[in-house]
Amino acid sequence: MCGAYSVRMRTRLDENMESLVGQLAHMCVASETAMSDATLALLDVDLAAAEQAIGCSDELARASTEWELAAFSLLALQSPVAYDLRFVVGGLRIVADIQRMGSLGVHVAKIARLRHPDHVVPTEVRGLFTRMGAVADRQAARCVETLRTLDTELAEQLLHGDEAMDQLHAELLATARSDEWKYGVQAAVDITLLGRFYERFCDHTVEIGRRIIWIQTGTAPS
Amino acid sequence: MCGAYSVRMRTRLDENMESLVGQLAHMCVASETAMSDATLALLDVDLAAAEQAIGCSDELARASTEWELAAFSLLALQSPVAYDLRFVVGGLRIVADIQRMGSLGVHVAKIARLRHPDHVVPTEVRGLFTRMGAVADRQAARCVETLRTLDTELAEQLLHGDEAMDQLHAELLATARSDEWKYGVQAAVDITLLGRFYERFCDHTVEIGRRIIWIQTGTAPS
Repeated sequence: MCGAYSVRMRTRLDENMESLVGQLAHMCVASETAMSDATLALLDVDLAAAEQAIGCSDELARASTEWELAAFSLLALQSPVAYDLRFVVGGLRIVADIQRMGSLGVHVAKIARLRHPDHVVPTEVRGLFTRMGAVADRQAARCVETLRTLDTELAEQLLHGDEAMDQLHAELLATARSDEWKYGVQAAVDITLLGRFYERFCDHTVEIGRRIIWIQTGTAPS
Repeated sequence: MCGAYSVRMRTRLDENMESLVGQLAHMCVASETAMSDATLALLDVDLAAAEQAIGCSDELARASTEWELAAFSLLALQSPVAYDLRFVVGGLRIVADIQRMGSLGVHVAKIARLRHPDHVVPTEVRGLFTRMGAVADRQAARCVETLRTLDTELAEQLLHGDEAMDQLHAELLATARSDEWKYGVQAAVDITLLGRFYERFCDHTVEIGRRIIWIQTGTAPS
């Protein structure tokens, strides 16, 4: 194979890889924003924020399909190996996680919109949702940074980010299930679903952390 | 390239592909069984069935990791193209869907175990859960058959299988949220979570149908 040709191919692979990395981070920003808008919609009864979050769904689906097609072309035409191949294979799962994070933000926003102009979240569990929103924001921001830098230390931090969320989620369910719950069944059903959406959002950020570590090291974290 | 060598490589690729197809169907049987055991645990207050469902989790995680490693090796060493490449790329998402279906079965079984020997499902919504369980069973069985045969007609049938589930799920939430609900908040929280698990289980079967169609035709269903 001609050396110049090989270098040109390598350069194109590098450019395509860089573009795939950039697009993942970009999509993750969209999912992060969807969930933070949804939290705003929920806690501040902000209909515009709910619509904003809901509006991101189609765009994320389109971006996800485009990413997959680009990854498929790269595999078909450039047969990446080692690190590059791990990135494309790992990325196929990461892109699904990111899209799902956005969908979970949309689910939260839809409940806020459905109940508007009423509050979905009773005063007693408002603090819990504020903290769940903050943990989701923090994890999503870390995810974006990890995808931008592909830094394993940041990815490691993602792995434990669901512990705080799991604790808040358990507390939320215990509150809704307790005999002292005084906000009725509808509110209990709503916050059960909402709590689940936040918890799953966080699970996906952990999965992304695990994938980044695998991409970088070739070994799945224990 | 020597012709005999090329034929040997092709044969090995075919064998590896066949093994990957077989493993997906095999894993899907495990997820199908987990959910049907979980439904049994739920409706018949059957602790052994709950334990059976919960026990599948580690095995499914291990099988999923093995599948991914085998797919990665195939991409790295045999650079499949066209249909074969679509199968491996699509399979990387399908394997995640199958694993998640198993996890949702485990979630259902864990709620049944937590409340044992009490019934989780109040009499009024028992019929709904029986039907949700039946839809989940039917979709999972179709999924197994679709993965065994890679038949696009079966895959098409999977695409609409979530409509019955969505309807049952909406009915369930409406019942729990209504003023007539008389089984208390704890039961409402439990059935809200359970309903969500069945609904998501079905969503994954639809996703698998979409992926199979893409693998076979190169075009995503609209």
